[in-house]
Amino acid sequence: MNKFSKYSTQATLLIVSLFFSAQLHSQDEEALFIKRIYDHTMAKGQCDQWLAHLSDTIGGRLTGSDNAATAVDYTYEVLSGIPLVDKVWKQPCMVPKWVRGEVEEVQLSWLGHKNQKKTLKASSLGNTVGTNGELLVGKIVEVFDLDTLDILGTEALKDKIVFYNRPMNPSRLSTGHAYGEAVDQRVHGASRASKYGAKAALVRSVTLLQDDLPHTGVQSYQEGIKPIPSLAISTNDANFLSQQLKESTVLGHIRNNPQMLDSVISHNVVAEIKGSEFPDEIILIGGHLDSWDLGGGAHDDGSGCVHAIQVFQTLQDLGYKPKRTLRCVMFMNEENGLGGGKAYAKASNENNEFHLAAIESDSGGFTPRGFACSGHPEVFKPYLAKLQQFDTFLDPYDLYLKAGGGGADIGPLKSQKGLLIGFQPDNSRYFDFHHTSADVFENVNVRELRMGAAAITALVYLIDQKGL
Amino acid sequence: MNKFSKYSTQATLLIVSLFFSAQLHSQDEEALFIKRIYDHTMAKGQCDQWLAHLSDTIGGRLTGSDNAATAVDYTYEVLSGIPLVDKVWKQPCMVPKWVRGEVEEVQLSWLGHKNQKKTLKASSLGNTVGTNGELLVGKIVEVFDLDTLDILGTEALKDKIVFYNRPMNPSRLSTGHAYGEAVDQRVHGASRASKYGAKAALVRSVTLLQDDLPHTGVQSYQEGIKPIPSLAISTNDANFLSQQLKESTVLGHIRNNPQMLDSVISHNVVAEIKGSEFPDEIILIGGHLDSWDLGGGAHDDGSGCVHAIQVFQTLQDLGYKPKRTLRCVMFMNEENGLGGGKAYAKASNENNEFHLAAIESDSGGFTPRGFACSGHPEVFKPYLAKLQQFDTFLDPYDLYLKAGGGGADIGPLKSQKGLLIGFQPDNSRYFDFHHTSADVFENVNVRELRMGAAAITALVYLIDQKGL
Repeated sequence: MNKFSKYSTQATLLIVSLFFSAQLHSQDEEALFIKRIYDHTMAKGQCDQWLAHLSDTIGGRLTGSDNAATAVDYTYEVLSGIPLVDKVWKQPCMVPKWVRGEVEEVQLSWLGHKNQKKTLKASSLGNTVGTNGELLVGKIVEVFDLDTLDILGTEALKDKIVFYNRPMNPSRLSTGHAYGEAVDQRVHGASRASKYGAKAALVRSVTLLQDDLPHTGVQSYQEGIKPIPSLAISTNDANFLSQQLKESTVLGHIRNNPQMLDSVISHNVVAEIKGSEFPDEIILIGGHLDSWDLGGGAHDDGSGCVHAIQVFQTLQDLGYKPKRTLRCVMFMNEENGLGGGKAYAKASNENNEFHLAAIESDSGGFTPRGFACSGHPEVFKPYLAKLQQFDTFLDPYDLYLKAGGGGADIGPLKSQKGLLIGFQPDNSRYFDFHHTSADVFENVNVRELRMGAAAITALVYLIDQKGL
Repeated sequence: MNKFSKYSTQATLLIVSLFFSAQLHSQDEEALFIKRIYDHTMAKGQCDQWLAHLSDTIGGRLTGSDNAATAVDYTYEVLSGIPLVDKVWKQPCMVPKWVRGEVEEVQLSWLGHKNQKKTLKASSLGNTVGTNGELLVGKIVEVFDLDTLDILGTEALKDKIVFYNRPMNPSRLSTGHAYGEAVDQRVHGASRASKYGAKAALVRSVTLLQDDLPHTGVQSYQEGIKPIPSLAISTNDANFLSQQLKESTVLGHIRNNPQMLDSVISHNVVAEIKGSEFPDEIILIGGHLDSWDLGGGAHDDGSGCVHAIQVFQTLQDLGYKPKRTLRCVMFMNEENGLGGGKAYAKASNENNEFHLAAIESDSGGFTPRGFACSGHPEVFKPYLAKLQQFDTFLDPYDLYLKAGGGGADIGPLKSQKGLLIGFQPDNSRYFDFHHTSADVFENVNVRELRMGAAAITALVYLIDQKGL
C-alpha cells in the first residue's frame, strides 16, 4: 500500500465515520423530538377541550345543518389562533341537505292480535325518504343477505317490509372488516327490496353490541328504482323481531318524515403552514367535521378533526418550522356525499398541487395502533418502503406501518400520486358508538385521544424531515 | 462430481425439501389452529358471563371475606364443569383478614373558620389502622415525595396529617410505569410520616383521571414504626386541597375504623389437565381471585381469572388434548399479602414440580397488545429467544413478545427456572378503574375481554406444541 492510498483510506474512513456519526446524531435528534412530541401532547394536549366543544357544546353536525356551520366557524377560529399557521380559509363545497324530520316511529303488531303493539328503537337512515308522516303498514319478511331477495322475488316481497338481520361477524379481528361485510344491508337494502315491490326496509344496526341503540348511517338509492323508507333498528329489537317471526306473522307500522332538501353550500376548513424548503410538497392531516345527528360525532369524527388541529398546535408549542407545506383540513360531508373531499381535490388539482402525503384520522379517538396506507399503483411500492423505514422511530411507541389503508376524504387525491395514509387506532369499541346517541365526549378517553394526536404528529414530523 | 455424490446431493435435497414441506405443513396447521382459537373465543366465549357473575353477582372479593370464599366455590364449580379437566382442588393458604369497618370520613376545615367544613371522597387504604371511630384532627402538610419528609423532619411534621400529592406522570406511555413511579406514596407514605410524629396520611389517588373516585390499594407499615391511619382521596379533592393549602391553614378531620383481624385460611383454586407427552412440564395460566372491596374487581382481576378459565374452556370446545400439563390457577390474596402465590409455589416446590411457563393475566380485560416475560438469569435468554420464535404466529394478531414482564402471583415460581410471562393488554384505561367503585363489569368491553382470552390461549397452545 503506498502512502497516498493509506492517507486516502484513512480520509475515507474518517469521512465515513463522520457521516455515520452525523447520521446517528440526526437519528438521535429525531427520536428525541418524537419523545418531546409525545411528552408535550400527553401532558399539555388541548384536543380533548376542542372535542368536548365540538361534540357536546355544538353537538351533532349533520351536513347542511346549523351545527355544521357553527363547527366550521369554531374550527376556523381555533386554527386561526395558532401563530405558526400562515393562512386559514373556508373552502366552499356543495352538499346535500337531508333533514330527519320530527316523526320517527316503528311499531310491531301481531296478525290476529290487533291491540298488542311494541315500539322499536329505530332511526331513519341517512338520505332516506319517509312516509311523509303517514302510517305505512306491511308484513315483515326477514332476510340475511341481499341476494336472497332475488330468490324470493316479487311474489314474496310485494308490499312487504323487508327486515335485514345479518349480524356483524364477531370473529373478525378487524371490526372494520366485519362492518364492511355487514353494511351492504344498510346501504343498498332499500333499493334491493323496492325492486321487488317492498314498501320499506328495516335494518339491523351495524354493530357488534347487543343493545338498545339504533345506529344510523347513509343509505343509497339505485337510480331508476322507487325510493322507499329505510330505518335502522337496535340489535336487541332485531333479535326480538327475529324471534317473533319464527312464531308469528308480524306487521310493521312505520311513520317518519325525513326529507332531502335542495343542496346547499357548506365549507371545508383548511389551515396551512408554508414549508421552508419544499413548499410544493404538501402533507395533509385531516378529519371530517360533519357527523350524524343522533350523538355528538365525538369518535366519528370529531376525534379526527381535533387530532389534526393538535398536530399543528403541538408543532407550534415545540417551535417547529416545517420544511414541507402542512395542511390541516376539516372536511365537510364525509357521511352522506363526500362533497368536501371532492371539492378539496378539485381545487387542489386545478392549482396543480402535489400532496406528498395525506393522512386521515377517521377511526375514532382510541389507543393508536399504527398507520396503513395506499396509493397510486405506479408509485405505491417505493413510497411504502420509504414509509416503513420510519419503523425504527415508531416501533418504540407500538405503532405499525403497513399497506391497506387510507380515508374517504383523502381518496380523491389518489391521482396526485402521493401516499394516502389512514390512522388506525384500536378498533374494538368503534362500532359500539358509531352513528348513535352514545357517540359523545364522555365515551372518549382523553389519554387515548391525546396518544392518537401524538402518533400522527410523530408521523407528520418524520415525513416532513425525511420526505418519502 | 462423481455419481455417488450426485445421488447423495439429490437425496439430501429431497430430505431437506421433505423436511421443510413437513415443517411448513405443521406451521400451517398451527396457524390454522390459532385462527380457530380466535374464531371460537370471539364468537362463543363465555368469559364475559363468568366475569359478570364474579364482579356483579358476587361482587368485591376482599381477601378473607365471605365474597372471596363464594368466589372460590364458584370458580371451583365452573372449572369442575369442564370435562377436559382431570382434577380441581382448593389449595389452602393463610391470608390476612383486614376489614374496612363502617365509618370512613375525611373532612376539611379552615383555621379560623370553625363552621366551614368540606367532606372529601376518601377511602381507607388496605391494611391500614384507623382511628377506632374517634375523631382525629390535625393540620395538613402537603408533600410531593417521601424524601421531603426527611428534610422537613419532626419539627414540621409532628402531630400533622401528611398529604402526599404527587400525580402520576401523564407523559408516560406505560401507565404501569407511571403508576410504579407514584405508588410509593400510597404504600410507604404512612410509615414515613409516622417516623416524624405525623398522626395520619392522606394520599392522592393513584390514577391519571381527574375524578371523584378514591382509589384504594395496599399500604405497608415499616416494622418498629407506629402505624398511623392512611387514606386515599380522589384526585379532584387532592387538587382542591392543594389549592386551599396555598392560601390557608387547613385541618383534616379523620374518622374511620378499619381493623386487621387474625389471619384466616383461604384457598387458591387449581384445575389441571394432565399432559399426554410431557406431563412433568407444567404450563400455568392464572389470575387472582381476590380484589378490593370498593367495586367488583372486574378488571382487577376478575378478567385475569376468566381469561384463564376461558383458555381451558376453549381447548375443551376445540377438542384439544395438551402434550404438557396445563394448570389453571385462581390465586388468592394478591392484593394485600400474596398468601396464595406463596402457598402455591411452596406446595409446588415440595412436590418437585417444574413450571415450564407461568402466564399471569393481571392487567385488565382490555385489547391485548402482547406478552412480556422474565425468568431466572441462568436460563432466561434462551427461553426468550425460543418464545420470540412464536412471533410469526402471533404477529398477525398484533401481539408482541418481549422481555420485561411477569406477575405478582407467579413471581415465587422463579426459582423453578421456567419462564414467567405477563399478559399485557392496552394499558390506557386500567388506572381509570383500578381499586375503585368503577371496577365493575359494565366497564369491561366483552369483545376486548374475549380477545385477551384468545391471545392467551394461542400462546398456551404454542408453548404446549413446541415447548420452550
